[in-house]
Amino acid sequence: MWRKYLKERQILVEDYMQTLVPQQSGPLARMMETMRYSLFAGGKRLRPILLMAAADAVGSDGRRFLHSACALEMIHTYSLIHDDLPAMDDDDYRRGRLTNHKVFGEGMAVLAGDGLLTLAFETLLSQPDAAPATLAKVAREVAQAAGPYGMVGGQAIDLGSEGEQPTPEIMTLMHRLKTGALFRASLRAGALLAGASEAEVQSLTDYAEQFGLAFQITDDILDVTGSEAVLGKPIGSDEKNHKATYVTVYSLPEARQMAKCAVDESVRALERFGDKAEVLRSLSEYLLSRDN
Amino acid sequence: MWRKYLKERQILVEDYMQTLVPQQSGPLARMMETMRYSLFAGGKRLRPILLMAAADAVGSDGRRFLHSACALEMIHTYSLIHDDLPAMDDDDYRRGRLTNHKVFGEGMAVLAGDGLLTLAFETLLSQPDAAPATLAKVAREVAQAAGPYGMVGGQAIDLGSEGEQPTPEIMTLMHRLKTGALFRASLRAGALLAGASEAEVQSLTDYAEQFGLAFQITDDILDVTGSEAVLGKPIGSDEKNHKATYVTVYSLPEARQMAKCAVDESVRALERFGDKAEVLRSLSEYLLSRDN
Repeated sequence: MWRKYLKERQILVEDYMQTLVPQQSGPLARMMETMRYSLFAGGKRLRPILLMAAADAVGSDGRRFLHSACALEMIHTYSLIHDDLPAMDDDDYRRGRLTNHKVFGEGMAVLAGDGLLTLAFETLLSQPDAAPATLAKVAREVAQAAGPYGMVGGQAIDLGSEGEQPTPEIMTLMHRLKTGALFRASLRAGALLAGASEAEVQSLTDYAEQFGLAFQITDDILDVTGSEAVLGKPIGSDEKNHKATYVTVYSLPEARQMAKCAVDESVRALERFGDKAEVLRSLSEYLLSRDN
Repeated sequence: MWRKYLKERQILVEDYMQTLVPQQSGPLARMMETMRYSLFAGGKRLRPILLMAAADAVGSDGRRFLHSACALEMIHTYSLIHDDLPAMDDDDYRRGRLTNHKVFGEGMAVLAGDGLLTLAFETLLSQPDAAPATLAKVAREVAQAAGPYGMVGGQAIDLGSEGEQPTPEIMTLMHRLKTGALFRASLRAGALLAGASEAEVQSLTDYAEQFGLAFQITDDILDVTGSEAVLGKPIGSDEKNHKATYVTVYSLPEARQMAKCAVDESVRALERFGDKAEVLRSLSEYLLSRDN
């Protein structure tokens, strides 16, 4: 049942993003085409779905915040485009297709990322039916999560530590910034837009932190145990790039145990929401069996 | 007298940006160092000064909005870092110093740009003493001006048209997006933050559009007639890169005439503000005698 929900919400996001980032003719055609190539490459749309599910959990209808939800997917997509660049992870494939710069060139890939990031803020600040104070707060939190003390900072730590084995503390900080911060902002944005109480926002923040941790650990596990066909990219790339992961810093069984623990904690944080948090619960448990 | 004002405001901006983007120790030290390298490279701080001067013109004290003003300089700086990348303009020098990627590598330069852009939105949304509705509106306008239908779009058109001579119409559009849009947002942001009337906002928008045009034309003229020592970068780079400029699409005397015309128009747009717009007037007239 929750998989049907998931599919429905994914389609909502796809369709709405078509209106936010439409095809264009004329001088800006190439700009839009480059952004659209990566935006419509079939991602799981996890961050928008988490934003909407958080709003659902506090008794609102998450679909009201589809606009803001799509902004998070733009930020996620921009980060993938820039991460794949030759000067960063130098990846040729993502989700089974050539990466953005392999198709459009590095210059356009940099600009497509820049464009999506900027458009994300315009989109966040155009969410209909929300108080300006809430919009400003949500956009500020997202900026914080995505910026130099968040996602970009995590990526910088990652780039600086390639080839050497960082301490478990540095690796944890890196992942918390690189992937955790945007998950956290996604859940908090949904809660804040839906008018959640302070205690509810806190519970969803606790959920987000454990969810983000479980996501990262299972991501590292998949890089070792996954199927290239299902992942759409080569496995073993972390090892190839001498990246510190939960599997290299710890061991595979330890990493599995840690992921299980984080999922349990995330589910515990949802207690106060009862049935309304069913989707968040299922999303978290699904991480333990994910294959991509 | 207005040069003293200019110097004072430049120092205000420099000092305040030191608090917004401080040195760091620990894992984020390199990230901050890379952003700071380009942020404190001695720019003219035109966009922050224009924001504050617009607020002055409508009877407020522009210094109240120093916070937002500095956010514009972050956006300008990020655009320079990304423009200088090998996949874009491939410049080794800027303001007499090595460009960001020559010092920190391309990966870190991409991230420094991403970080400054994101931090700019966090900063815009943290402006003290402003109504949330104004903050949201200002940040949304800046995002629009900087995004795929603004600055980034202009850069994409520029990148796509290298090596061929675009029509005057395309060149004008490109410059309006690439440099004009952010000047326009700077003036409008100052006016909106200061609580300007609709008519005042419109006059400052008219000023901004002519100022932006004059800025671009005189920039193109400097690339032909300027001194490398004063500019801090090689002259003739537009010609080398087969870029369309006001000097190549028109002629040098025509470009000079067009710049003069735009400056006159910009000054005319300021009539209603009287003495309070003295700085904006001087800034515009200075463009005709600029040497960097």
